[in-house]
Amino acid sequence: MLSRAVEPGDRTTSSLVRQIGPQGAVREQLAPKADSGLPDRLREVDPVRELEQAERQGIRFLVPGDPEWPQGLDDLDHIDSVQALGGTPPGLWVKGPMPLTELDTSVAVVGSRALSVYGDEVARAIAGTVAGAGVPVVSGGAKGIDFAAHDAALLAGGATVAVLACGVDRVYPEQNRRLLAHLAAEFAVVSEQPPGSAPTRIRFLARNRLIAALTRGTVLVEAALRSGALNTVGWAEQLSRSVMCVPGPVTSYVSQGVHEWFRRGGASLVTHGAEVLEVVGAAGEHLVVAPRGEERPRDQLSRSDQLVLEQVPVSSPACVVSIARLCSLHIRDADSALRRLESSGFVREVEGGWRLAGAS
Amino acid sequence: MLSRAVEPGDRTTSSLVRQIGPQGAVREQLAPKADSGLPDRLREVDPVRELEQAERQGIRFLVPGDPEWPQGLDDLDHIDSVQALGGTPPGLWVKGPMPLTELDTSVAVVGSRALSVYGDEVARAIAGTVAGAGVPVVSGGAKGIDFAAHDAALLAGGATVAVLACGVDRVYPEQNRRLLAHLAAEFAVVSEQPPGSAPTRIRFLARNRLIAALTRGTVLVEAALRSGALNTVGWAEQLSRSVMCVPGPVTSYVSQGVHEWFRRGGASLVTHGAEVLEVVGAAGEHLVVAPRGEERPRDQLSRSDQLVLEQVPVSSPACVVSIARLCSLHIRDADSALRRLESSGFVREVEGGWRLAGAS
Repeated sequence: MLSRAVEPGDRTTSSLVRQIGPQGAVREQLAPKADSGLPDRLREVDPVRELEQAERQGIRFLVPGDPEWPQGLDDLDHIDSVQALGGTPPGLWVKGPMPLTELDTSVAVVGSRALSVYGDEVARAIAGTVAGAGVPVVSGGAKGIDFAAHDAALLAGGATVAVLACGVDRVYPEQNRRLLAHLAAEFAVVSEQPPGSAPTRIRFLARNRLIAALTRGTVLVEAALRSGALNTVGWAEQLSRSVMCVPGPVTSYVSQGVHEWFRRGGASLVTHGAEVLEVVGAAGEHLVVAPRGEERPRDQLSRSDQLVLEQVPVSSPACVVSIARLCSLHIRDADSALRRLESSGFVREVEGGWRLAGAS
Repeated sequence: MLSRAVEPGDRTTSSLVRQIGPQGAVREQLAPKADSGLPDRLREVDPVRELEQAERQGIRFLVPGDPEWPQGLDDLDHIDSVQALGGTPPGLWVKGPMPLTELDTSVAVVGSRALSVYGDEVARAIAGTVAGAGVPVVSGGAKGIDFAAHDAALLAGGATVAVLACGVDRVYPEQNRRLLAHLAAEFAVVSEQPPGSAPTRIRFLARNRLIAALTRGTVLVEAALRSGALNTVGWAEQLSRSVMCVPGPVTSYVSQGVHEWFRRGGASLVTHGAEVLEVVGAAGEHLVVAPRGEERPRDQLSRSDQLVLEQVPVSSPACVVSIARLCSLHIRDADSALRRLESSGFVREVEGGWRLAGAS
C-alpha cells in the first residue's frame, strides 16, 4: 500500500515504517498535511487487491524484516546524504524464482547506454568471468552496458538480476523485452515501484541506489561525464561499497566519466573479471596472480652469459677484447660465452666483432 | 677519464669521487685489485685528448659541482636500492646549446618502442601540451613513444632533451638520425657514456635512471608487461618523483604494463597534458578544472518545471492528474508546467497523456 503511494526516497515514510510499522505509518500519513498528495494517494490504494493481482502475475512483495529481504538495503538508512532519494525502500517487488538473499555476494556492472564496441567487449568479459565464478551480476536492464552485462552473465551460465525503475511487469526499454522476460522467468527482476509504474527520471536515479546497496561493489565500465552510471557509483561510494573503474582510451568520450571518477580517488582500477572477484571476494578468496609478462629466452641463460650479453652492442659491433674488458672476464671466457650466445641466436659475429642478433 | 673507464652505476667509483674527488678516485682505482678491469681501462684513457676531441665536436663534459650540473642527479646517491646501476654518474656528456639547469622543471614522457596508433596520439597530445606550457620534455630518443614525445614537443614550439644509452655523437636508432641531430643542434642530447660508446642492454637500463632523476615526474604512456619503460618509472618511484600513468584499452597489450603498474598503487592517472602540469607544477600553478560535461537544456529550467519533468514517464504516457499528484501540485499548475515543457521540446502530449519527447 505504501509502496504504491510513496515516491522513491521518501525518508519520512521509511523512517515511520521502521519506528511504528507499516500500519502506523499509513495512519500517520493519512492525517491531512499541508501541500502533500500522500493522503489522497493512500486512500486510493487497495492493498489486498494489489497483492492478489501481483501474486497472479508471479510477483511477490518483500518488506524489511522478511527472511528474503536483502540486508544490504538497510545500509541506505545510514547514509547522511544531502541527496534526496536516500532511504531504505518501504518494500521491493520481485518477479522470478531467485531468492534475493543470493545477492549478498553479488557485483553490479553498470555503464552508459551508448556503449562503444570496446565497452561492449569489456563489460561482457568482466560480467562473464564474475557470473561464471558463481557471483551474481546485478544491473539495470537498460540497453548498452547493462544489456551486455546481463547477457554475458547468462552466456557464462551464471545468475543475473535486473533492478528496474518501472514496475517489474513492465518492459523498458522495448528492445530488452526478451532479456527481461528471461530474467523474470529464470532469475529475478526487482523494483521498488509497484507493478504498472512507469519509468521516470527520478525513479531511475532512485533505482541506482538500490543497485549499489544490493551488491558488494559496482564495476563502472563506460560512462560519459554526466552518465547516470556515475550516480550509481556515487551511491556505492556513500554506502562504502567497492567502486571499480575499468579504464579505456583517454580519447574516448564514454571513458571520460570513468577516468574523471577515478581521479577523484577511492576507486580501484580493474582490467578483468578476476580482479573484480579479488576486490569483492572474502579475504584471500579470489587472489589474482599479477601478470608477469612471458618468460624470455634470455632468462634461461647462465648469469655469466647474461653479463656478456648485456655488453654486446645493439648495432655496430664490438670486438671480443672490448667486450671481455667490459665484463671483467678473460678473453677466452668471453669468447666461449659469445659462441654459446651465437648458437642460441642472441648475438651475431659480423665484420668488426659482435653485435646483438635481430636488432635494427 | 673515469667516465670512459667506468660502467654505469659503479657506486664504488661515484662514492670515491664524492669523498676524495675525481683525481683521488683515479689514483685509488689504479691500485691493482683482484678481478677488476678498471686499472687497465683507466691507464688506456687520455683525458686531455678526450676532452679536446669532444670539444671539437661541440660536446661538453659536466661533473658534479659544475653550475650546469642538474641537482636532481644527486638524488641517485640517496637510493637504498637493491638494484645495481644506482649511483650518481661520474659525469655527463652533453651536446647542444640548452643549459641542463632548465631541466629542473622538466617532465619525462616514456613508453614502449612498439607503440599503437592510440599511444602515438596520446603521447603527442601530452608532450605537446606540456612542452607548449614551457615545461621541457625529456625522453630516450628511441622509436615509438620516445619519438612521438620529442617530435610533438618540437611541433608545439617547446624544448625537449634526449638522454641516450650510447655516446651523444652516435645515432641510435638509425631512423631517428634527423631527430637526434636536431636536438643536438637546438636543444640537448645527454649521456653518461663518453663519445663513441655503443648502446648495450645494461647502458639502456642505467640510462633510465637518469631520465627519472633529471625530471620532476615521468609519464608512462604505453608499456607491455616487461617494457623497459617500466624500469624508468621504477626509478622515478624510488626517487620520489611523480609517476603518471596514461590508461588505455584493457584489451591492448601495450597498456597492460601501465595498468599493472598503476594497480600497484602510488601513481597518478592522467588523461591529458593539463593534468600532468598540475601534478608536476608548483602548488596551485597549473590547476585543472575538473571536466563537468556540457550544460544540459534541462539545467536551465525552473526548479518546479524540473520537478514536473522528473515525473513524466519515459515511454507510455501519464495523464496530467497522475503527474500532478506525483509532484504534489495542483492540476492547473502541473498543466502549465507541462505546456511550458512541451514548447521547449522536453515532453510530448500523446493519446493518454504526457511522455518525454525524444525517448525511445
